[in-house]
Amino acid sequence: MNIKKAVITAAARNQKNLPLQVLVDADGQQKSALRIIIEEALDAGVEEICLVICPGDQGVYRSAIGEIVGKLSFVEQTEPLGYGHALGCAREFVGYDNFLHFVSDHLYISNQTKRCAQQLVEVASKESCSISAVQPTREGMLSLYGTVGGKREGIHPGLYSIDAVREKPTPTEAEQSLIVPGLRAGHYLCFFGMHILTPQIMTILDEIASRKPKGNILQLTPALNELASRERYLAYELPGRRYNLGVKFGLLTAQLALGLAGRDREEVLSQLVEVLASRPTA
Amino acid sequence: MNIKKAVITAAARNQKNLPLQVLVDADGQQKSALRIIIEEALDAGVEEICLVICPGDQGVYRSAIGEIVGKLSFVEQTEPLGYGHALGCAREFVGYDNFLHFVSDHLYISNQTKRCAQQLVEVASKESCSISAVQPTREGMLSLYGTVGGKREGIHPGLYSIDAVREKPTPTEAEQSLIVPGLRAGHYLCFFGMHILTPQIMTILDEIASRKPKGNILQLTPALNELASRERYLAYELPGRRYNLGVKFGLLTAQLALGLAGRDREEVLSQLVEVLASRPTA
Repeated sequence: MNIKKAVITAAARNQKNLPLQVLVDADGQQKSALRIIIEEALDAGVEEICLVICPGDQGVYRSAIGEIVGKLSFVEQTEPLGYGHALGCAREFVGYDNFLHFVSDHLYISNQTKRCAQQLVEVASKESCSISAVQPTREGMLSLYGTVGGKREGIHPGLYSIDAVREKPTPTEAEQSLIVPGLRAGHYLCFFGMHILTPQIMTILDEIASRKPKGNILQLTPALNELASRERYLAYELPGRRYNLGVKFGLLTAQLALGLAGRDREEVLSQLVEVLASRPTA
Repeated sequence: MNIKKAVITAAARNQKNLPLQVLVDADGQQKSALRIIIEEALDAGVEEICLVICPGDQGVYRSAIGEIVGKLSFVEQTEPLGYGHALGCAREFVGYDNFLHFVSDHLYISNQTKRCAQQLVEVASKESCSISAVQPTREGMLSLYGTVGGKREGIHPGLYSIDAVREKPTPTEAEQSLIVPGLRAGHYLCFFGMHILTPQIMTILDEIASRKPKGNILQLTPALNELASRERYLAYELPGRRYNLGVKFGLLTAQLALGLAGRDREEVLSQLVEVLASRPTA
């Protein structure tokens, strides 16, 4: 399985400035969050990237990205009809190809030399099927994430076949249909926000949309749940962490994690100590 | 002395995105850096603010500021002719009034309940003269700051009369003309980036500009040095800290300091511990 395309959704109306925030990357360079995210895709071997954006954002986003290798195109989501609808806007770009997908308001920090997206692309290439990165997550955090149910797949550690996908399940709902044998008690597999998908997802999104009244919100989770019933669909416990930039102190936490994981670790630690030592005494 | 006007310079060509960066303020609210800076002025009792900007930035800056009380106006610096020139662009706005001035790429965190600008305004009101906030700074850091020489003024702790102002002096230059009796050895009084100025500064800037070939860079420091020779001009060792957002990891450090000084201190500390504990082990 060959993955040369990526779709990045950046059309959330309330977070238009998030991709423009400036961070120091693990390589010590100051970049926009959007550029860091795009480099994640390029480092995974992707050659064409499609950004799904709000109408009118192309100019400012393009200048926040700067020069990159690879082909970059923009598609506008003209109405705010949900995450599934935003992804569906990249239908023509995707065509008949498998693609990498992630959101623009998260940063991914790998525990390995290889970046997160690259790891996921390598597993997908070997398994030749749709695959979503997941993280074992405490029950108390379920209200924040899409969550999958399934069972361990073969001998590859961290690989699961997905039976069901639910958006932000209640603990009761999770206990009934999303328990994954072998996970720590009270833990579930929640989405990391990074997926390799077959073009089948576009067909499913179209089908779901056609069954709804026009103008209804279209989420991605029901489409992924349907995908699990139609084809082999795996979850991979990716050795890394995702940082949501959109939450309070999300930028701070992401920058700290990025700084501590990168070449400027010592500098970040010494800044940290200095700030802690110099805090106002009043 | 009454200070109801503020001039904030935000026209540096290479830092156009800095005022747009989003931070969580000490009150726990997410705001642009620019809004935090403007609130610093408003909290000091300022009623009219003039922002000196690059041509074309008004729209994006205005939306980053949001709704505020008080009167906000914009003046464009049409050519990048230096910091002094940028301040001079606010000549008409200032008129015959004293004004508060600071830059848009710093955040100020007070050690007291009162914010930094408010403290400076109160001292200036009492002393009825131009006054610059300063911080005792190690000799090794002189290459980063405007530095003043002078002596302790009266009995008010932290107040100095200024004899000379030099931009980024060498240690030798500092030792010859900027030693301030009573400071720790090897320490000098460096600008905090916040000033209360009489309209005299505008006259001086005009005079200096008229002596230079047209199109030459006009810095603020020579004008402040001239100000010291014409009228009473004080330095105040302000109990607070300035954070330069424009340096590498400047946003991180400022956010940490702001978070630790504010109502979200516990949350920031626990985030900090979590990130430190979860760092990649590879």
